[in-house]
Amino acid sequence: MKGAVLYGPRDIRFEERDAPRIVEPTDAILRLSATCICGSDLWPYRGISPVAEPTPMGHEYCGIVEEVGKAVKSIRPGQFVIGSFATSDNTCPHCRYGYQSSCVHREFMSGAQAPVLRVPHADGTLVATPELPPAEMIPGLLAVSDVLGTGWFAAVAADVQPGKTAVVVGDGAVGLLGVLAARQLGAQRVIAMSRHPARQQLAREFGATDIVTERGDAGVARIKELTKGVGADSVLECVGTQESMMQAIHATRPGGSVGYVGVPHGVELNGEELFYTHVRLHGGPAPVRRFLPDLIDLVWSGKMNPGKVFDLTLPLDQVAEGYRAMDERRAIKTLLRP
Amino acid sequence: MKGAVLYGPRDIRFEERDAPRIVEPTDAILRLSATCICGSDLWPYRGISPVAEPTPMGHEYCGIVEEVGKAVKSIRPGQFVIGSFATSDNTCPHCRYGYQSSCVHREFMSGAQAPVLRVPHADGTLVATPELPPAEMIPGLLAVSDVLGTGWFAAVAADVQPGKTAVVVGDGAVGLLGVLAARQLGAQRVIAMSRHPARQQLAREFGATDIVTERGDAGVARIKELTKGVGADSVLECVGTQESMMQAIHATRPGGSVGYVGVPHGVELNGEELFYTHVRLHGGPAPVRRFLPDLIDLVWSGKMNPGKVFDLTLPLDQVAEGYRAMDERRAIKTLLRP
Repeated sequence: MKGAVLYGPRDIRFEERDAPRIVEPTDAILRLSATCICGSDLWPYRGISPVAEPTPMGHEYCGIVEEVGKAVKSIRPGQFVIGSFATSDNTCPHCRYGYQSSCVHREFMSGAQAPVLRVPHADGTLVATPELPPAEMIPGLLAVSDVLGTGWFAAVAADVQPGKTAVVVGDGAVGLLGVLAARQLGAQRVIAMSRHPARQQLAREFGATDIVTERGDAGVARIKELTKGVGADSVLECVGTQESMMQAIHATRPGGSVGYVGVPHGVELNGEELFYTHVRLHGGPAPVRRFLPDLIDLVWSGKMNPGKVFDLTLPLDQVAEGYRAMDERRAIKTLLRP
Repeated sequence: MKGAVLYGPRDIRFEERDAPRIVEPTDAILRLSATCICGSDLWPYRGISPVAEPTPMGHEYCGIVEEVGKAVKSIRPGQFVIGSFATSDNTCPHCRYGYQSSCVHREFMSGAQAPVLRVPHADGTLVATPELPPAEMIPGLLAVSDVLGTGWFAAVAADVQPGKTAVVVGDGAVGLLGVLAARQLGAQRVIAMSRHPARQQLAREFGATDIVTERGDAGVARIKELTKGVGADSVLECVGTQESMMQAIHATRPGGSVGYVGVPHGVELNGEELFYTHVRLHGGPAPVRRFLPDLIDLVWSGKMNPGKVFDLTLPLDQVAEGYRAMDERRAIKTLLRP
């Protein structure tokens, strides 16, 4: 089997790897229908989070179950399933509170940019669709696995409420699907912060009512202007830099909420400054498993199509070009067909 | 009129000051029935937050209205009133959302360690009791002004829920009243972190079910042990140091909430570390005005007596001894009688 392996900065190789097999009795082996490249894959790709050794890449996946371990009860070979980037038993206290990405059995997935994938804790990690999906639905279902689930968590963590105003910081795939999530959760006004015409266009398709092109303090000033000086009720932080985090915090009204899902890189928050903003802060690795059943329903029923976020589709063996296109911002998100 | 003025580290003087008078038509002048010393007054007293010039101290107060400005409508001379350390118009958007301590007209009060006090925005800041209170109720009503209101906000910001577990970091007056608040809000288990016997005793009187004497990592380990490895649903951070903040964050379960009301001094939060804790963080200067009507009711009806937090009562002219007693932890909180 050949899969994507990162050797160092901008050195991604499509090379022979051992085919995954059942290791634990709770495992499942999937033949992937589609996989993709995540914005977070760009941190190690760019060398910002260096890799110590050649690392199989990819953590977004959906496909057909080929085999399950002896202890797997609810997942069966032949089913089409979707899982999260974080495995979960879905029974521990953290899972029962809806924080499956802090499951006591959590493992962060990797190696999904490949035709076959081993998924630990299959019963607690995977959710099956009602039947095999039509081909055109696969991008939407793949998006549920991480990028939509993460944007959705940003909106939930930012406490998006019907009739209220949400701001989305970050016009990457997660931010764009954060726009979709905020709108689905009933926000009346969704302000997308983007200076990139194609992304602005997609933000509007996903339901953005306003676009703000300014950043930093100027961006905050513009949000204040659009909200009569008050600030937004909810801000989705979908980047993970110091600038984006402060932009999110300062765009929020006192008592409003910031949902942050961009893995923070070098972010330091001054306690006293945060204190006087009166902002509520919640985030972390998205507990996608919590949302999987509902999000699969919404895609299955045609109520939303998050698959539009994939603006480049390549055969898996061209994975290196997929990374380059995202790194150079030529593509929002690359879908890979094994 | 004589009042307390801070000149520098541990140099508090009881000296002649101009008697307050109406300046703005929205002002009220109160003759104070009681005032007190706040834990936050110890920051400048100890020189940790230096004062640039001689500063009239005190921001907790209740008393009888002597005079009101021409624009004051709901507050009348002769009423017994309680106000917050932050003035508010109670009509701006932030006030309407319940964040009166971020009111667009907010001023932080000072000079309340005196017999007479000017209160700006009297209609939006002050709340009157149903009639003049009996003398024995005055400590309880005074506590509502800040220390109870702040402990209450810590519990609300930490999302204390009936039947759940709350932890209180800090055994100062705010922390002790945080215990009372958590209990009143229905927490089944309230774990107070204190190594001070008299404070432990008061915590138990206020409803603490458990006492943890360990601090830092050992304190966190003990909380984990008491919660079967899960962590607490709600943690009230009532100190404001790096150690207390990290103790609060790490004692909380993923998806749980930290309510922080200790003004942070030198606190820096690492974004990535916070991200992986999955904790919800909310705090700031307590919007006491939001809670005043309900808290006054609870004291008036005898359902709680937060006045027990005052374990030292002195005549106002002995204010310097009041500071010393709190600085040396001989007193939890000093009530001053003008």
